[in-house]
Amino acid sequence: MKLYDAAMPAPNPRRVRIFLAEKGLSVPLVPVSLAAGEHKQDEHRARNSLGQVPVLELDDGTAISETISICRYLEALQPQPPLFGTTPKEIGLIDMWIRRVEQQIGAHVGHVWINAHPYTERYAKTHGIQRYADFGDYSRGRALGGMTWLDREIAGRDYIAGDSYSMADIAALSIVDFAAFIGIEMPEDCAGLRAWHARVSARPSAQA
Amino acid sequence: MKLYDAAMPAPNPRRVRIFLAEKGLSVPLVPVSLAAGEHKQDEHRARNSLGQVPVLELDDGTAISETISICRYLEALQPQPPLFGTTPKEIGLIDMWIRRVEQQIGAHVGHVWINAHPYTERYAKTHGIQRYADFGDYSRGRALGGMTWLDREIAGRDYIAGDSYSMADIAALSIVDFAAFIGIEMPEDCAGLRAWHARVSARPSAQA
Repeated sequence: MKLYDAAMPAPNPRRVRIFLAEKGLSVPLVPVSLAAGEHKQDEHRARNSLGQVPVLELDDGTAISETISICRYLEALQPQPPLFGTTPKEIGLIDMWIRRVEQQIGAHVGHVWINAHPYTERYAKTHGIQRYADFGDYSRGRALGGMTWLDREIAGRDYIAGDSYSMADIAALSIVDFAAFIGIEMPEDCAGLRAWHARVSARPSAQA
Repeated sequence: MKLYDAAMPAPNPRRVRIFLAEKGLSVPLVPVSLAAGEHKQDEHRARNSLGQVPVLELDDGTAISETISICRYLEALQPQPPLFGTTPKEIGLIDMWIRRVEQQIGAHVGHVWINAHPYTERYAKTHGIQRYADFGDYSRGRALGGMTWLDREIAGRDYIAGDSYSMADIAALSIVDFAAFIGIEMPEDCAGLRAWHARVSARPSAQA
């Protein structure tokens, strides 16, 4: 098994590295240079036709893409400590919170990144990707609104999906940190979200 | 347990009904009228602050939102027949395909619906939602491109994630049917995707 990986600040590869650190697992990492466009070359597209990282390649050649899916595979191989829940209720709620942080914050951050961030302007131009700057700017407000919503939702609990650290925290941490990297900081008045962020950032896995 | 549900053509509630039919499960359905805006009223927002359906309410009052998360909860309660996989590899690949159809097709269809479809114009106006018609029109092409990509990807197999029907087929069917409802039909030259669509639509569960 090996993991095709990319360096920070790419948020998706980091998710899997945090997950591995929380599990105490080690998988050989194969760096893919995003700066050199290696993820869009044929060699990598044979693993993932979408030209994205990370990709987990199994010993039989099967390639699993999508961060959450890679982590689910690893959780099925090594269930302890559980990061996707063990009871039906935990399984349902953790999955719900992964999806909620992705949709209510992550998707909007992605729209800002693709449509309105200076770093992606040249890439879009050379790859024929249309950018909608107004929509990107609007998405910034949606991302901030999503953070405010999440702040209210997690009131009174230590982690995104309940009283235990889970994959939902890893998903949210990678999104919030990438948002900050592109200039979308958690609102000042989101005290609970900020306390959560400090809590999960203090775990050794957050350095992954 | 009860499921807050909404009628066709809403794609998300349908997913859970298809899943229940495939499992041979029956859960009491509580209809929520989208036309009357019941999903945005306080009573429903207490179950899901995002004002969305479906929501599965457990006997202890816990509310699980997000179609895939509801189905995962039900799968954990009743594993047979498995629709999310049983081996680590199946679990990883089915999750990957659920995410891929959602991101490569579903998200774009959603952008068309919200930004460029006449049915949502009045709703957006009364709820202060900004619409970006150019982006919506562009997303139509992205949705069609996603279908063409999926057609290539599933070449040589009967179902989205492999040789067995899975949750990825349910996700894809609900997306493709909703896309058609808003005028985004599978391209004529996507013969494999069209054959897949006919195959899964012929199952009794597709009537749910």
